[in-house]
Formats: sequence, C-alpha cells, structure tokens
Amino acid sequence: MSAPKVQLLLTGNELMTGDIVDSNSAMMAQVLKDIGLGVSRKVTVADDLTLLVNEITYMTSTSDILIINGGLGPTVDDLTAQALALAIGEELTQHPQALAHLTNWCRQRGAELNGPNLKQAILPKDCQIVANKNGSAVGFSVRYNNCDIYCTPGVPHELKTMLIEQIIPTISANLPIGLIADVTRLQVFGLGESSLQKIINEQLPQWPTAIDLGFRAGMPLLEVKLTTDTDEGLALKIIWQEKLASVLGDHLIAEIKDKPKSLAEHLLNQLQQHNLQVTTAESCTGGLIASKLTEISGSSMNFEAGFVTYSNKMKTAMLDVPTDLFEQYGAVSEQVVVAMAKGSLVKSNADLTIAVSGVAGPNGGTKEKPVGTVWFAWGSIDDIKTQCLLLPYKRVKFQQFVAAIGLDLLRRYQQNLTATPNYITEHSFSEQ
Amino acid sequence: MSAPKVQLLLTGNELMTGDIVDSNSAMMAQVLKDIGLGVSRKVTVADDLTLLVNEITYMTSTSDILIINGGLGPTVDDLTAQALALAIGEELTQHPQALAHLTNWCRQRGAELNGPNLKQAILPKDCQIVANKNGSAVGFSVRYNNCDIYCTPGVPHELKTMLIEQIIPTISANLPIGLIADVTRLQVFGLGESSLQKIINEQLPQWPTAIDLGFRAGMPLLEVKLTTDTDEGLALKIIWQEKLASVLGDHLIAEIKDKPKSLAEHLLNQLQQHNLQVTTAESCTGGLIASKLTEISGSSMNFEAGFVTYSNKMKTAMLDVPTDLFEQYGAVSEQVVVAMAKGSLVKSNADLTIAVSGVAGPNGGTKEKPVGTVWFAWGSIDDIKTQCLLLPYKRVKFQQFVAAIGLDLLRRYQQNLTATPNYITEHSFSEQ
Repeated sequence: MSAPKVQLLLTGNELMTGDIVDSNSAMMAQVLKDIGLGVSRKVTVADDLTLLVNEITYMTSTSDILIINGGLGPTVDDLTAQALALAIGEELTQHPQALAHLTNWCRQRGAELNGPNLKQAILPKDCQIVANKNGSAVGFSVRYNNCDIYCTPGVPHELKTMLIEQIIPTISANLPIGLIADVTRLQVFGLGESSLQKIINEQLPQWPTAIDLGFRAGMPLLEVKLTTDTDEGLALKIIWQEKLASVLGDHLIAEIKDKPKSLAEHLLNQLQQHNLQVTTAESCTGGLIASKLTEISGSSMNFEAGFVTYSNKMKTAMLDVPTDLFEQYGAVSEQVVVAMAKGSLVKSNADLTIAVSGVAGPNGGTKEKPVGTVWFAWGSIDDIKTQCLLLPYKRVKFQQFVAAIGLDLLRRYQQNLTATPNYITEHSFSEQ
Repeated sequence: MSAPKVQLLLTGNELMTGDIVDSNSAMMAQVLKDIGLGVSRKVTVADDLTLLVNEITYMTSTSDILIINGGLGPTVDDLTAQALALAIGEELTQHPQALAHLTNWCRQRGAELNGPNLKQAILPKDCQIVANKNGSAVGFSVRYNNCDIYCTPGVPHELKTMLIEQIIPTISANLPIGLIADVTRLQVFGLGESSLQKIINEQLPQWPTAIDLGFRAGMPLLEVKLTTDTDEGLALKIIWQEKLASVLGDHLIAEIKDKPKSLAEHLLNQLQQHNLQVTTAESCTGGLIASKLTEISGSSMNFEAGFVTYSNKMKTAMLDVPTDLFEQYGAVSEQVVVAMAKGSLVKSNADLTIAVSGVAGPNGGTKEKPVGTVWFAWGSIDDIKTQCLLLPYKRVKFQQFVAAIGLDLLRRYQQNLTATPNYITEHSFSEQ
C-alpha cells in the first residue's frame, strides 16, 4: 500500500511580496516526515478568491491530503473559508462550535466579540472544527473528492500546536500500518552543519541507508534527526546512534524522542539536580543570557539575579570592578570580565556565574580588539575560567551566539567536561 | 495598461522535505517589487520530470513572466533544461556559449571539465544564455506561449547577482511606464488585527479601492501597508494616509518608506534627541527589556545599566526594596514595582526607568493574582506612573508582550502622550 499524496496550499499577500520568508511549509514537511509522509507539491498564492478556488479544485483532484495554511484571520483579505465553500459547492454558515470558541476566547481576554472576529465563525457547512488553543481562528476540515482538506492558521505557533496535537494524530490514525517512522533527535551545540557532515563522512563512512540522517540548523542548537521506518533500521539504529553520539562527544547536549529543549533548560535541569544558584554579569549581551534563563518555567529555583552592566561606570557601581582596570586593560579584557564575574558572585551570593564583555559592533572595534571580540569568565568564586573568542557575526547574531556559548560553557563546567569545544578551537583569539 | 503577471516555479527535493527553508522566492519577490511587479503565484515541486513539465505548461499559459529556480546543477536530479525542452517542444543541444562558459570556469579553477559538468551546457535549442558570474551553471531564457521564461540557479548568491544584474534590467526595459508601486508602512503597537480592521470599517468606510491596504501581524508591532500604483491612488494617498494616521492616534509608532524599526529603536531615537538615560528593573521579564534595548547599535549612549531582580532577596539587595513590602503586599504589587523603579533610578542615576513584576506562569498564580498579572512602574524619580494588567498569554509570549508594553509606556511618557492605549483598556486589572 502506498503512502497518501500530500500537497500544501499557502495563502497570504505577505508571502507573495517577499516581506516574510515562509517557514511554515518547511515545518509542516518535517512534521509530516515524522509519520513517514512526503510533500509532493506546494503552491503559494496571494489572497485572491479566484486563484484560491482554482487551486483548491485542482489540488483536491491530485492529492489525498491537502493542507491549506493561512487566510483564517478576521480581516477582509482572509478568504480561505469562502474559497473552500465555493470550491466544494457548500454554503457558508455560522458554525456553533466556532462561535463558542470565539465567544470564550474574547471573554477570557475581556474583549468584545466584534464583527471582524465573528467572521471567523462563518465556515463551510458541515465542516469539522479543529481546535486552536493559541488563537482566535479555529481550524476546520472537510472531505471532498476523496481528499481530506485541513484549513490551518498562518501564525506559526498556532499552526504548529494544531498540527502536532490534532491534525497529525488524525492523519496518522488513518495511515496504513508500518508507515509510522521511528524518530530520534540528537541536539548538538558548537558544531556547524558542514563540519558535522564532514565528521560523519570521515568517521562513519558505512552509515546504513536504512537510517535516514537529517540535519536541522537551529540557532543556536543543531538537530541531527535519525529516522527509520523498517525493522532493519530499528535494529541498526541502536548501534549507529551510539557510534554517532561517541563521535559528537561533548558537543552532544541530549538525545531526545520528544520535545527539544533549549540550552538554558538543559543547564537549569542540571543546576536543579545539584541545588545550585547561577547569576549573570552581562555587558555586550545586555540581558540576553538572563532572559534565556528566565524563559524557562521554574528558573526562579536556580536564578535570583542578573547584572546588566553596559557602561564602565555601572560595572564599577554594580559589580565593584576597579576603575583602574578600564584604563589599564580596557572594558573588553580578561581582567575586567574576571572582576565582573567575581563581583556578580559576591553581590548575588550565587554558586556559579557567567560574565561577558565584547565588541558587538558595528562600531567600536579597534585593530587590537576588532568587532566580534568577546571575553568570557565563568565558574565559581575560587575557580574562574576565562576565554577570548573572535566571532565574526553581525550584532544581533553575535549577541545570540555569545549568550549560547556562555550557557554552554557553564554546562561544561558544571559537568566537569574538559575537552575543548569546537567553537573555542575555531574562534580562539588572543590580543597581541 | 496592466502590469505583467509573474509566477515563480521552484524545484528541488530539499525544498519539499523541510530540510531547508526557501528564502529565494522572498528575495525574488522583493527584487521584482522594486520595479513595481507583484508575484501572483508560486509553485514548488520535487525534482520530478512529469511534475515539472506539467507545471511549466500550465504556468506559461497563465502568466507573462515565469521564473524557474533550481535544477541547473550537474547531478542527475537536476532536470530543468530537460523539462523545459519537453514543455516547449524543443530538442536539447549542446549550447556553444554555455560550453565556453563552462570551459572557462573550469580552466580558471584548474579543474577538469567532466561529464556531469558538461551536462550543464546541454540546453533547449535557440535559448538565450543568461551569464552566471558566480557559478558553473549558466541561466537561460526562452519566449514561449507569449511568456518570457527565465531559468535560474538555486544557489542564493548566484541567483541574486543574475537577477539584479541581468534579468531585472531586461524585464524592466520592457515594462510600461508608470508601473512602479508606491509603498508606505504604518507601524502600530497596541491594536490587534481585528480591532484595527473594525476601526477602519467603522471610521473610514469609504476607503478608496485605488489604495491597497495590507496587514502584517508581527510580534509585537503590527504593520499596515498602503500600496498604490496609479496616479489616482497616489493623489488619494496623501489624504487617506493622514485620515488613517489620525484614527490610529497614539498607537501609531511611525510612518516609514524604508526599513521597519523595533519599538526599542524608536524609543532610543527619542532618548538620543533629548540626551536622556534609561534603566530597567526587571523581575518577570528577566532581562528581556534590557536585551531589546541593547540589540540596537549605539544603545550605549542612552543605556548604562539594567537590573534583573528575580528573587525578593535580590530586589532588596540590588534595588533597596524594603523587605516589609513583600510581606504586606507581595512581590507582584504596586508598592514593590514603585520601589524597584525608584531603586533603579537611584542606583543607575538614569533619567527614566521601567520596572516590571508579574506572574509569568504556568505556576505561581493565585486567585487574587492569577497567571498573567503584571505590575508596571515607569517614569522619572519624582513622577512614577503605575498600571496593573492581566495578559492571558503563555510564559514566553507573556514575557515578550510585557517587554513590548514596557517600551511603549516609556515612549508615551517621553512624548507626553496622555490618551489611554488600547492594551490598557483591554487588559486593565485591579486586584480585589
């Protein structure tokens, strides 16, 4: 029995103008791949009724599953329900379940259920509602022309939750047995995609074809996905996953079957196990490391305070950094980050700290300390480590990478890992 | 005379698996927009000869310009030339100009012109070559069925150079005069898409059809885009943009013709004009407001320090918040945020501050202070304003929204805006 044919239809003027890059369809393809389904064709059109009706008509005649994304919003340019009704020859009616969702949604937010919102309950007659936990727009599905059509919201996190929690399980339940794939993700930090590919080519040249190897470059974590849907693959996977893990070494953060975690979450889980407090002293990242930690629910157990000391004056006022260090070594120096690290530990009484000071650019670079230079100091009060790196990225990406490295250095410190990570080998920098 | 209809056809297995996100089509749309052309439809298919031939046949019959991207490489799965030849009924021959390019390309790199490379010179008979400065794959174009077809390489920088230096000038030279569209963006904060649509429906019901109105919901800013490509539209736009601006009131952050700015950047621009220093005292946002400010290059002129005081103990240690306030009112209270705000001004010597303390959840809510409750305190040392809101969002979205509101409250304070913003009307919350 062959797998069902899946097509995607994306709608939205903003997708046609180039104002946004479509990441939804890649996400949909990945989630579908997890249950063994490929996407054969995708079409993107502007918010235009005639175009939409034509596409829906043609696509339902050439696929078994059609996922339509976007056009569920309250504004006049959102046309999915109307186009679908025309294409399948159903009238539009107010759907009681959609109305209940909207009423409830507005009540919870103390907002009035207005005309534009009410439009979101006007759907093709007899469609099935697909709940939206995170937004006002419900999804809906119909079966037409032997094709299952799912209409989904364009907002990425609404789409993702709806897909994973509802649409995929429904599709999956109707799949022929044996199509469900086994997926494991290896979360990696500090190795780029091409370095990783090279390592695998060189060290694991016999990688078995029964295990599909996929890469997904995230910022900052890279995900290596092992997928197999055969018994042979499942048997081989036990050995080859172990081989891969050993090749990745300390760059491997976790091997997971379910939801990926951030670097901050991995670190906080460790700190929680050992009941340790962490603090931050940030100059060039300006609070980003602290905010990554506090994104995680329960972080208050292991994080009490962070110091954003952007100017020299405030490094002294908040962290007691001696003023003569600035004159003698400059703000971006080993001496200053060490003083920041120690100051943060003394002021917060935490067990561990990470301090960073660097030149985020685009201005402020010198010949000795070019844009991208950054000093790290981390550890505990009687054991502070330091490192200088040169990270050739633009301001915001530089800040994100510095924050990620800071969290990874703490993870390595806390786990007593002594191998030199790839980002240090690659970006080591010492001023002359 | 109407604008030519443009469609895009993208080919590549890697585009269908979700392993890469397609950024080429957004770039192509933007470059085309610069000469006033919109893209009405784009189709993405795997490297499959039948699919490609079908798409090319249909797309040339429904557009004036078709740009095909990808499938020009040397490997067997690169099928664009073959598919195009089949679709237009021409044979494939070795093209002398393409061969010369390849020979030259290989000689310059000291490489041998091998079989796979030679394949790149086998093109539909009588096609025009489009030079590729940056890669081995030449582009080519044919006119068929009253449609200009351009085949371009999938590698982003090769595509971009070829488009900007060759294809766009060719298309542009054939365009009717006066087609270049006029685009203005209005950046809005504090009004949702549906509220905004309602306001426009009610207060500007006569909105002229000559001005296209587009919405783009960002987090946190909403963008309203006014586009027109007619003389009538241009004349009307002056009046109607003003009417829209007046309806948006203080929710309008800026009217821009070029690159959008973040809330933090708008605020920093104002502070720079008045030479004012700002500081932050963050509990539930954990450094996010400070990091938004320091994302902006040059922020060090107006931002010296931020205080991330996540625990009560550190609110006292870093900002001198009196301990009895916690017992009497709790950490999420007007009294505590005011003390945080004042403490941050005293400790940093800044002119303005924003302090936040809230329940980010998912745990820690009580009946009186449910998850989503947040107190803001902002202003200068002798004029501190306060507000309590209830923002029913999940942790990370809650933190982002709180940070955005914090920055907007400072913008309003600094500009002496006194009208109540929509987010206060909508989410006002007072504990009982």
